Amino acid sequence: MTSAYFLDLFDWVGVFVFAVSGGLIAVRQRMDIFGVVVIALLPAIGGGTLRDVLLGQPVFWLSDQISLLIATGAGFAAFLAPRFWTKFKSLRWLDSAGLALFAVVGASKAYSLGYGFVICTIMGTITATAGGLLRDVVCNETPMLLKSDIYATAAFSGAAAYVISKAQGGSELLSLSLGAGLVFLLRAVTILYKLNLPTSKGD
Amino acid sequence: MTSAYFLDLFDWVGVFVFAVSGGLIAVRQRMDIFGVVVIALLPAIGGGTLRDVLLGQPVFWLSDQISLLIATGAGFAAFLAPRFWTKFKSLRWLDSAGLALFAVVGASKAYSLGYGFVICTIMGTITATAGGLLRDVVCNETPMLLKSDIYATAAFSGAAAYVISKAQGGSELLSLSLGAGLVFLLRAVTILYKLNLPTSKGD
Amino acid sequence: MTSAYFLDLFDWVGVFVFAVSGGLIAVRQRMDIFGVVVIALLPAIGGGTLRDVLLGQPVFWLSDQISLLIATGAGFAAFLAPRFWTKFKSLRWLDSAGLALFAVVGASKAYSLGYGFVICTIMGTITATAGGLLRDVVCNETPMLLKSDIYATAAFSGAAAYVISKAQGGSELLSLSLGAGLVFLLRAVTILYKLNLPTSKGD
Repeated sequence: MTSAYFLDLFDWVGVFVFAVSGGLIAVRQRMDIFGVVVIALLPAIGGGTLRDVLLGQPVFWLSDQISLLIATGAGFAAFLAPRFWTKFKSLRWLDSAGLALFAVVGASKAYSLGYGFVICTIMGTITATAGGLLRDVVCNETPMLLKSDIYATAAFSGAAAYVISKAQGGSELLSLSLGAGLVFLLRAVTILYKLNLPTSKGD
Repeated sequence: MTSAYFLDLFDWVGVFVFAVSGGLIAVRQRMDIFGVVVIALLPAIGGGTLRDVLLGQPVFWLSDQISLLIATGAGFAAFLAPRFWTKFKSLRWLDSAGLALFAVVGASKAYSLGYGFVICTIMGTITATAGGLLRDVVCNETPMLLKSDIYATAAFSGAAAYVISKAQGGSELLSLSLGAGLVFLLRAVTILYKLNLPTSKGD
Repeated sequence: MTSAYFLDLFDWVGVFVFAVSGGLIAVRQRMDIFGVVVIALLPAIGGGTLRDVLLGQPVFWLSDQISLLIATGAGFAAFLAPRFWTKFKSLRWLDSAGLALFAVVGASKAYSLGYGFVICTIMGTITATAGGLLRDVVCNETPMLLKSDIYATAAFSGAAAYVISKAQGGSELLSLSLGAGLVFLLRAVTILYKLNLPTSKGD
């Protein structure tokens, strides 16, 4: 098994869980089937799309239509059986898995283009969080990521861990696992202990 | 008359009606003249701009400034004489015409770049609907396209009809007319009979 | 001192004041430190990013990480000492300075690529205002720029003044100063005399 194989697999799982999680929000807002699929697509491919546009690279889903297919399928799945998916107790766990996977995939893409620490961690964070931000903006909700929980910070940390591991000569699979593991760990601790980053005291 | 001529003509008419329809919304929100022109520009050139960025093509209005001129003129027209334009009974008919024209123009651009069915229909749908979505997000309104009416689905169907007609050897003019006609027909039936796509029953 | 030096200096000052002004809004909304830095980044680099994407140029902060650093630092500064910054009486003066600097920097970038009057003034206006618009949309506020004050119109006028001065053979430094001065003057008059552009009478 090559590392490219793992990267694709990580990416597809991330696409699926983000799309289901987005689709369920659309179902809760009583959108029609088309709206559910669009809102499923936003978090699933929005972050990676923005990353590719900013990097000046061809948008990934122009050639990789498997992602589009998976996200559309997940949108239909959310539409047809919202109760089944909601049984997974909390959307936040699904969402945390997607966050972890996308953060390292995004950092890995920038790293493979030769960018350094700053740009790689930014691209990892954008890949992981921009799609969800877009979803919240389109749904006219206040983006939760900016107000509560250690969310984007977790994505940022995982992307950083990936880059550091790679720079130390770690293999792609090890670095991906390390980075994604760190994101998921940070999210798990945050969810279980209801942690938040500090807000400004000065005002 | 060449098919390129028709494509341009279709495009300009679409730009004008979308810009008027956007400008009227801005007038209703009591925006100043600059705001009205900006909100007129969003639906008129926003969808095509996003399409070009995603396709990695030069943004169309960098070279074709006629579109910018038409959209700006339509914004002023909406600002100066909102009552004249509102006399056209319902904005929805103007909007449906723009939707029909943009859906096939967008699909045609992707088709001419050699893309297949999936990407062509997505680009047609984006060209037709992303500008209006952007307008609603900037105006802080819930995007209606995701909640009611058969709207984006109509754009999607028309783009699909265009691609199928082209793939069967149909001429550009025939395919454009077929696709745009289908969009307008679907919108007309939707408006007259107040149809909606189903929402999820599972929640 | 070369004109490139001045352009960079203008740009960095603009980045700093826009980022502080954005960060202070985020502090007022009680965002956490990460949210404050993100909202600081949006107006500081959002407009220039959109300009580069639309022009098909490499996004400026991929190579110029000084801007990222300045904006991040300004975000922290806003988070740690909001009262210090608010002492500058009104955010609107900081904001007007940023607007003036970005309008001419944006027009200058398009001009150096060989574009004419229309595209240069549009790019100046986008560089100056799109980041703030993005900030308002993400914060779920009605974009003030579209409703009140002579704001984007000032940016537009300054960008136009820059292009006209350059076309008349004016030096880069003279043209930058002329354009930025005009924007700041228009803003100052607007703020001091509470001017607004007319809204439509026809409705």
